[in-house]
Amino acid sequence: MFISFEGTEGSGKTTQIKEIYAAMRDKGYQVILTREPGGTDISNQIRTILLENLENKNMQPRAELLLFCASRAQLVGEVIRPYLENGGIVLCDRYADSTLAYQGYGHDLPVDDLKRILQFATGGLYPDLTVYLDLSPEKGLERRRKGQLFGEDWNRLDDMELSFHKRVYDGYQEIISSDKKRFLQINADGKPETVTQSILDTLFPLLPPVNRSNSV
Amino acid sequence: MFISFEGTEGSGKTTQIKEIYAAMRDKGYQVILTREPGGTDISNQIRTILLENLENKNMQPRAELLLFCASRAQLVGEVIRPYLENGGIVLCDRYADSTLAYQGYGHDLPVDDLKRILQFATGGLYPDLTVYLDLSPEKGLERRRKGQLFGEDWNRLDDMELSFHKRVYDGYQEIISSDKKRFLQINADGKPETVTQSILDTLFPLLPPVNRSNSV
Repeated sequence: MFISFEGTEGSGKTTQIKEIYAAMRDKGYQVILTREPGGTDISNQIRTILLENLENKNMQPRAELLLFCASRAQLVGEVIRPYLENGGIVLCDRYADSTLAYQGYGHDLPVDDLKRILQFATGGLYPDLTVYLDLSPEKGLERRRKGQLFGEDWNRLDDMELSFHKRVYDGYQEIISSDKKRFLQINADGKPETVTQSILDTLFPLLPPVNRSNSV
Repeated sequence: MFISFEGTEGSGKTTQIKEIYAAMRDKGYQVILTREPGGTDISNQIRTILLENLENKNMQPRAELLLFCASRAQLVGEVIRPYLENGGIVLCDRYADSTLAYQGYGHDLPVDDLKRILQFATGGLYPDLTVYLDLSPEKGLERRRKGQLFGEDWNRLDDMELSFHKRVYDGYQEIISSDKKRFLQINADGKPETVTQSILDTLFPLLPPVNRSNSV
């Protein structure tokens, strides 16, 4: 089973996915936690170009899209697909929906082209379930600015203007409305513990039975 | 006018394109020389991941393809397109044909998918002319091994086995046969000076008149 976490900046994805990962391990699930862009040596080198090098401000939107997809192709082939094939559960902090929301809706790249490139990059592997942490872009950026409340560093995308983040937010709403069954929408405007409980209540009933005999 | 140089490893592209660049400048052409992957700050960061980090041996072929295309998208948007729009001539060491030859034919990725991704990455910008330096893969690799005869460093792709380089070579032949008018095939199995002269004799009659009044 493949579960992604999605949301706009400051929605608390990274904090929450760690809590859910810990809770699943406590229950006895074979589970790994990974993130995008990143999760492999090569993908982390790509992540540095995309997010950590603040001098890369004049990155072409098409180059950005292709870098995210390159990182994903590496992660899928090296980590996600082998782990799923061994019967494990993969939790992924961002996945293909982020590309559609940020590069498609945020940067206004043609969504149909993006879907084809995503299909190529992932080899057609999409999540079974996606936890979407819903928080307005204004509140999210405010959280981020207040200083790493959620343990994340400021990055190149945080520097984009508010109108960009609003387009991303609206993009997510459109993606969700076209694929409602896959998405678990969680209100992320509350204390971290409250949000965690709300994810647990929604997600855990949908998980398969724990099989303690498997090991990956 | 946009002119690319293509060829397999050790064919002498990099040496030759520098000679041709110098000859065109001497004639008074407004011309820039760039290379793939690379040619911009961001593209050079991508080049490091692709070629210079010898630990990246387990790179997924799809990730590799997307990284080459990301580097190209940046180069096209930041350098090539603006320079062409100002009336200049661009010489580029490798371009989209390399992707088809190396990732399509060499790594056996689906050529139709690649063509669509290339179309996205380049925004549909293809060379007017392509100089192809023809040398057998055996001779090319021998040159490379003998030690930087052409001033290039050993890189991650040089480390691939001979059968890979043979597939690349055959791929180029197929690409050329489908688009004969664009390609100038040059026999690269000779002294560097001889090869340079042969390119000059073939290419220069096809260049537009020099316009000394323009400046870029």
